[in-house]
Amino acid sequence: MIEVSQTAELEDIVGGNPRAVARAISKVEDGVQGAAALMKQVFEHTGRSIVIGITGAPGAGKSSLVDKLALLYRKRGERVGIIAVDPSSPFSGGAILGDRIRMQTLGLDKGVFIRSMATRGNLGGLARATVDAVSILDAAGYTRIIVETVGVGQDEVEIVKTANVSVVVLVPGMGDDVQAIKAGIMEIGDIFVINKADRDGVFATEKELEALLSLAPRGDAWQPPIVKTIATESQGIEELATAIASFKESQLDSEVQDRQKSIARWRILELLREQLLARALDQPGTSEALNQLVDEVASRRRDPYSAVEEILKNG
Amino acid sequence: MIEVSQTAELEDIVGGNPRAVARAISKVEDGVQGAAALMKQVFEHTGRSIVIGITGAPGAGKSSLVDKLALLYRKRGERVGIIAVDPSSPFSGGAILGDRIRMQTLGLDKGVFIRSMATRGNLGGLARATVDAVSILDAAGYTRIIVETVGVGQDEVEIVKTANVSVVVLVPGMGDDVQAIKAGIMEIGDIFVINKADRDGVFATEKELEALLSLAPRGDAWQPPIVKTIATESQGIEELATAIASFKESQLDSEVQDRQKSIARWRILELLREQLLARALDQPGTSEALNQLVDEVASRRRDPYSAVEEILKNG
Repeated sequence: MIEVSQTAELEDIVGGNPRAVARAISKVEDGVQGAAALMKQVFEHTGRSIVIGITGAPGAGKSSLVDKLALLYRKRGERVGIIAVDPSSPFSGGAILGDRIRMQTLGLDKGVFIRSMATRGNLGGLARATVDAVSILDAAGYTRIIVETVGVGQDEVEIVKTANVSVVVLVPGMGDDVQAIKAGIMEIGDIFVINKADRDGVFATEKELEALLSLAPRGDAWQPPIVKTIATESQGIEELATAIASFKESQLDSEVQDRQKSIARWRILELLREQLLARALDQPGTSEALNQLVDEVASRRRDPYSAVEEILKNG
Repeated sequence: MIEVSQTAELEDIVGGNPRAVARAISKVEDGVQGAAALMKQVFEHTGRSIVIGITGAPGAGKSSLVDKLALLYRKRGERVGIIAVDPSSPFSGGAILGDRIRMQTLGLDKGVFIRSMATRGNLGGLARATVDAVSILDAAGYTRIIVETVGVGQDEVEIVKTANVSVVVLVPGMGDDVQAIKAGIMEIGDIFVINKADRDGVFATEKELEALLSLAPRGDAWQPPIVKTIATESQGIEELATAIASFKESQLDSEVQDRQKSIARWRILELLREQLLARALDQPGTSEALNQLVDEVASRRRDPYSAVEEILKNG
């Protein structure tokens, strides 16, 4: 019976039924039993979409840019999936709020699927769930999948690295920390966007970016372009789509394979980490032992390292 | 012999020797053998510092704020440790660059210890290493430890939550995404700073922040204050230090204990996750098996879930 219902579930997903897609994403988000069985079936149907990762500093206008890019792809007849990852919003309704604002622009279009994903707390797994959600959208026939990260941090960089094309969004004159961020995300940007390009300081930001890019040569022949956009006025969006297409076309087969391999390695390690922890915590008595150890560490009667040794001894 | 050298190492740390402290932090960063033994000894000597976590949007001027707060604490006779966490900088010299700039302001003062910590790649552990580094500085007699995160994301939120006092830094008028960030970091801020308070839009940002704060009531009696600063001109730094001290004084014993417990739980889970993965990958033959599985997943001959099952079967 379980086999039958999973097959029906898969059929609905591959058929592009939005409700089935939404349910499947909730399943991988919750990490419930059955997600593994589902993902094994989904995986076979993937590999047809172009996945575009978009990251950048807060305030850079990424959401508007993503919406406009989605509209452009829609006009070209593509089906578009959008996943907005918000790791900084553990409890609040931030993600849901974002969805609602989005729905006003794109929500009535059945060729667009929008989903926000937020953290699940201590147990992690957001990055893994995001990549699984991308696979589900891919299997469901969304030909362009845009993964937008709200924050700028380790998880966001990891998530964007799992895309086929990575776009880094900057904005003119954002202050000292931008330098630090640029240094960090320089390596992951296949394409750079300077959004809000009607603001002061565009030229300086562009020169600075060019200088940084010349200091960090890539392993391939691709020269990351700098695209200037004013997303709110739909300016530069065509150029961005062209840059994305050019990058995909320029990649050698061997480069695509290398990227697939590093994504595969990352996916396996993420999933392994998550499943090892879940297995360890699932052992009978571990939950009580953990509570006890938490008390001991909190009151400094024990250090965290020996607490973990204690748990591993029982595992 | 190992016991003896560890004891000497511990003595140097507890004696406040900066080189010993730096070496110990490198050890926990590398996660090498011996870090566990060291941390077990270090942990006993901790619990005397006030740990201040500072996070906020890029471009908010966190670095200047941290430097000025450190200078103030120095004037008051405190020894100050600063840890700048840069999860977005996996490969580049971003962190080191940051250190060098810092050293010009504070570097010659022996009462200040500055360290940047960046990600270690796929294996994670940055947040755990940061918290271990805080323990080392604590044991070494740094009475004020400031942990500054460069990015805004899941890891950064996690790291800031392990502090005794969390400070969230905003800046007037940073655009739409700020709303999303605010929603996410609202819960973790014990104190809010509006830096660059000579800019336009301070009043609007303050009102907006007050409105958001009134929507998200805390579990305790503390009313998070909003401190306006111009860090580059050293304005508002005294007020920030006062707010930090007031928060510490206002906390009930039971609140301090609850916080210690959630930090302890987080530390144990982080360490457990890391050690489980390290153990699994250490199994003989796992590295070859992993490479094989990576190839299979990359070429879509296998899905990531069954790849992980394969590894777990052997573990």
